[in-house]
Amino acid sequence: MSSYRAPLSDMRFVLFDVLGAEALFARLGFTDATRDIVDAVLEEGARFTETVLAPLNRGGDATGCSYDPATGTVTTPPGFKEAYAQYVDGGWAGLVSPVELGGQGLPQAAGVPLKEMIDAANLAWGNFPLLSHGATEALLHHGAPWQQEAFLKPIIAGRWTGTMCLTEPQCGTDLGLLKTRAEPQPDGSHAITGTKIFITAGEHDFTDNIVHLVLARLPDAPAGSKGISLFIVPKTKVGRDGAMGARNAVRCGALEHKMGIHGSATCVMNFDGAQGWLIGAPNKGLAAMFTMMNTARLAVGLQGLGLADRAWQNALRYARERLQMRALSGAKFPDKPADPIIVHPDVRRMLLTQKALVEGGRALGYHAALLVDIVGHGADAAEREQADALLGFLTPIVKACLTEWGVECTYHALQCFGGHGYIAEHGMEQLARDARITTLYEGTTGIQALDLMGRKIMQSQGAGLRVFLQMIEDFCRANAGSPALAEFVEPLRAKAAEWQALTMTIGQRAVADADEVGAAAYDYLFYSGYVALAYWWARSVAAADASAHPEAFKDAKRQTARFYFARLLPRTLAHKAAIESGGGSLLALEADRFDA
Amino acid sequence: MSSYRAPLSDMRFVLFDVLGAEALFARLGFTDATRDIVDAVLEEGARFTETVLAPLNRGGDATGCSYDPATGTVTTPPGFKEAYAQYVDGGWAGLVSPVELGGQGLPQAAGVPLKEMIDAANLAWGNFPLLSHGATEALLHHGAPWQQEAFLKPIIAGRWTGTMCLTEPQCGTDLGLLKTRAEPQPDGSHAITGTKIFITAGEHDFTDNIVHLVLARLPDAPAGSKGISLFIVPKTKVGRDGAMGARNAVRCGALEHKMGIHGSATCVMNFDGAQGWLIGAPNKGLAAMFTMMNTARLAVGLQGLGLADRAWQNALRYARERLQMRALSGAKFPDKPADPIIVHPDVRRMLLTQKALVEGGRALGYHAALLVDIVGHGADAAEREQADALLGFLTPIVKACLTEWGVECTYHALQCFGGHGYIAEHGMEQLARDARITTLYEGTTGIQALDLMGRKIMQSQGAGLRVFLQMIEDFCRANAGSPALAEFVEPLRAKAAEWQALTMTIGQRAVADADEVGAAAYDYLFYSGYVALAYWWARSVAAADASAHPEAFKDAKRQTARFYFARLLPRTLAHKAAIESGGGSLLALEADRFDA
Repeated sequence: MSSYRAPLSDMRFVLFDVLGAEALFARLGFTDATRDIVDAVLEEGARFTETVLAPLNRGGDATGCSYDPATGTVTTPPGFKEAYAQYVDGGWAGLVSPVELGGQGLPQAAGVPLKEMIDAANLAWGNFPLLSHGATEALLHHGAPWQQEAFLKPIIAGRWTGTMCLTEPQCGTDLGLLKTRAEPQPDGSHAITGTKIFITAGEHDFTDNIVHLVLARLPDAPAGSKGISLFIVPKTKVGRDGAMGARNAVRCGALEHKMGIHGSATCVMNFDGAQGWLIGAPNKGLAAMFTMMNTARLAVGLQGLGLADRAWQNALRYARERLQMRALSGAKFPDKPADPIIVHPDVRRMLLTQKALVEGGRALGYHAALLVDIVGHGADAAEREQADALLGFLTPIVKACLTEWGVECTYHALQCFGGHGYIAEHGMEQLARDARITTLYEGTTGIQALDLMGRKIMQSQGAGLRVFLQMIEDFCRANAGSPALAEFVEPLRAKAAEWQALTMTIGQRAVADADEVGAAAYDYLFYSGYVALAYWWARSVAAADASAHPEAFKDAKRQTARFYFARLLPRTLAHKAAIESGGGSLLALEADRFDA
Repeated sequence: MSSYRAPLSDMRFVLFDVLGAEALFARLGFTDATRDIVDAVLEEGARFTETVLAPLNRGGDATGCSYDPATGTVTTPPGFKEAYAQYVDGGWAGLVSPVELGGQGLPQAAGVPLKEMIDAANLAWGNFPLLSHGATEALLHHGAPWQQEAFLKPIIAGRWTGTMCLTEPQCGTDLGLLKTRAEPQPDGSHAITGTKIFITAGEHDFTDNIVHLVLARLPDAPAGSKGISLFIVPKTKVGRDGAMGARNAVRCGALEHKMGIHGSATCVMNFDGAQGWLIGAPNKGLAAMFTMMNTARLAVGLQGLGLADRAWQNALRYARERLQMRALSGAKFPDKPADPIIVHPDVRRMLLTQKALVEGGRALGYHAALLVDIVGHGADAAEREQADALLGFLTPIVKACLTEWGVECTYHALQCFGGHGYIAEHGMEQLARDARITTLYEGTTGIQALDLMGRKIMQSQGAGLRVFLQMIEDFCRANAGSPALAEFVEPLRAKAAEWQALTMTIGQRAVADADEVGAAAYDYLFYSGYVALAYWWARSVAAADASAHPEAFKDAKRQTARFYFARLLPRTLAHKAAIESGGGSLLALEADRFDA
């Protein structure tokens, strides 16, 4: 099966050398988040994920979760439940939650490497605590004090887990179509009735309660997405005093059979007049939902990153071990029966693509987590506002790019194994199947693209883009005189100017025709992602050069950056051409003529 | 589950309107391959694949093949064996084989739509007859008369099936490393000993004999690939008189557990002094093997095409049915609760990408099959030679592009389903898993790229490319004055010139450094594939305009061609830039520094 070693060295490099997290944590008032503490968390996280979670990954895929129709219960794969108990005992559940609610109070950016490790070690298992994280955010920002006391504290302690119950058979993206009803009850609660599908961790055997956050409609709610409210619906009822009560009328009706993440319980959940408690204001459920959703989108981006990294580690190992053919330029290892395949340029193309997307993507993803910390803890209102605009802009890019790159990297990694990659025992095909969900859930790639182009560019007049362009400009200016960085600074500056111009072009067209937003969205998102990664690669080279890392490390960063600029950044040319061609070629064909 | 309708209308359009197959078949002496006959074959093939094979696809995936270690036998999924009997009864097995050996004598290009239908309907099942096709080619071109009589006739009749036994644990691409031994026996046979892996259809319950074509080394063979010979090793021994004898010492040792094509038996085959008969000359096995391999590569390309088409059909249906959100430019179906998702530009992007790659890819693939017929039956030696050069040039392009596009199309199609695409019951995830093997077996994409760049460009001085460029030039010249085609002719001509120049650039570099061949190969192959597809799309528009097809059909071809030129052809920009950047960024990083 595939192996996993937490990439601690690169995680630290990104966090401390590239992003300067240590000073930032101090400035934001995270007095406990010293370098020593964060290092210890990383070490311990590596131990837990490598030795506890990773070994359960293959078995979890083979066994999957099972459902008992008689009782509506779900049994998780062997070892999953015990691993969760260790996770809770280790204090991981509340790592980045507020101290006053029982958490450890570390910054989000310090928790993000742990998240990446969990996903790489065992994505299916990682989905159970992931959903708690979304529920935590919603309860933290929108829950009443008694709700935080009764529901949030047990989640932060890891005693219970949370879910997000949004999707219904007739509505996924389009939540305005949802039908689940909430009837007010004399005791101030609501009776929730309806069916939700695709509910990750909707039922399991880890904990004795599960806190569902459920979107539903009040009786007098306006139609569409303006009439949606959010409710807390626990599996077992909980009094305002926190006392456990009777079993609530919510039940898992089935498990989905999926392409991958077999160890995750993806549930159909039936609510039959279940007791629910309104969170936040009536009909304002969508805003509360987005609090969960934005967190979840960044988290899913990290899933793509984690899987890509694990795939890449195994592809590299295999490419060094597998002997096949001689280098075209002559034998490199004449004493062996053939050269290891890492000598072949096309295998190197696949390996370097993975390395460039994984390590560059790590900077992109961790930076977003730092922005979450600044938004939450920045002392200066202007700084918080700027970070918020940038975070909003980057969230769809992180989600879509890291997951699509995760699919791409697991693809290349499997391909490096040749036919052996298709065989289950090597574990590469599981990574590819597991990665495939990440571009779908928490908003498909197309939805991320619309969010970026529609909300973050058009509706916000590109506020976040301006902040990012300024970061690029600051970096280019600061390094304008550096001969060592000139090969990156010049093309980066040119791309930034092109990015700005391209954004203007689309904006002008979209004013005339709203469909131009949708027509440009996908290519604009990836264009943006590749330019953003060029920035992070240039910064990574600068950070490596300025660091105390060994020469081999610095050389690897520089050569990978060169590869990125030479062979991946040109993908922007295709995206730019597609954008500039406009919406006409997408819109002209009548729907009934597609199969004429 | 996913549905399948054979795309007869487009198959006929490509074969007869675009490629002018009717006149060509007549010219090549296929007097039976009239339009009426071929039409009847297509109709009957559609009926067989839609009603017999397609319904077995989902069950074949769920059940898979099973292996009994006690007997070494393999049981195929329910219905597979009976479907094979119907296939044989219908006369399909020998459709394109010579009449004198019991076949129907139809041209390869007339069999190719049937092949596409089989793969689309049930890829896993299709792998059983596929391997017979490769064995047929090898026996036809290299077998002695008694071998053709004893082994080939039963294969053509469908009574037995064939295999290709090449791969061993230590050698896949690098056949020079193979260890299987062949010891001469007094009766003129050889005793074959060794282990082969990844043997498709190596054991099954369809027929009472299986004819393995096995690569092995004679005792005095030179080292490496110059010392490989090809042997016929039947599961049950067969005398020179064709009489069935005792069970041979070849046995299936295990089945592989794979990502997909669960209904195909992928076998470990153990040869333990099995009786084998040399085919062709000693130590010339690689040449005979390539006879099988080239056929198999075109066939695997069609597998990618078939899966892409089935995926696309289902994505289109779903995009018309699924109601979600309103068009950004205003509701298109105000009477429905939401618009069908086909109104959204990004969904159209995914659908049109599939349509452009499937229909364009069909012309690319069918054209290659016509070249096989010209090579085999052309009256003029110069014509045969030119067709052979072009076929050699196009074979790696057809194999790599149609399979990678198959992966891409099944990806987009699944994505069109959103989260539902990840759920097994919709059948989209099976298509994606099944497609994933096609870029691996019969030579990975990287190997196709090396074959193109190394053999077909460098070693052959671009003979095949020159023929293709002349075809483009002829088309552009013939249509230079056509206002209706100007939008395609001009960019096509420019791309062809660029293609030629790019080839020269790589060639010059490669003379100085052999690794430049490998460094450019992948991007050159896809660059070539996209330009080739531009040519077929331009020709498709011209052919549609000149045909009697309805206006809606002509419009769909034109709009799809416009989409292709505007949004897919620009991928050549990224490939060109990658090629022009040279091998430096791939080769500079030391192998031990990839994880420094």
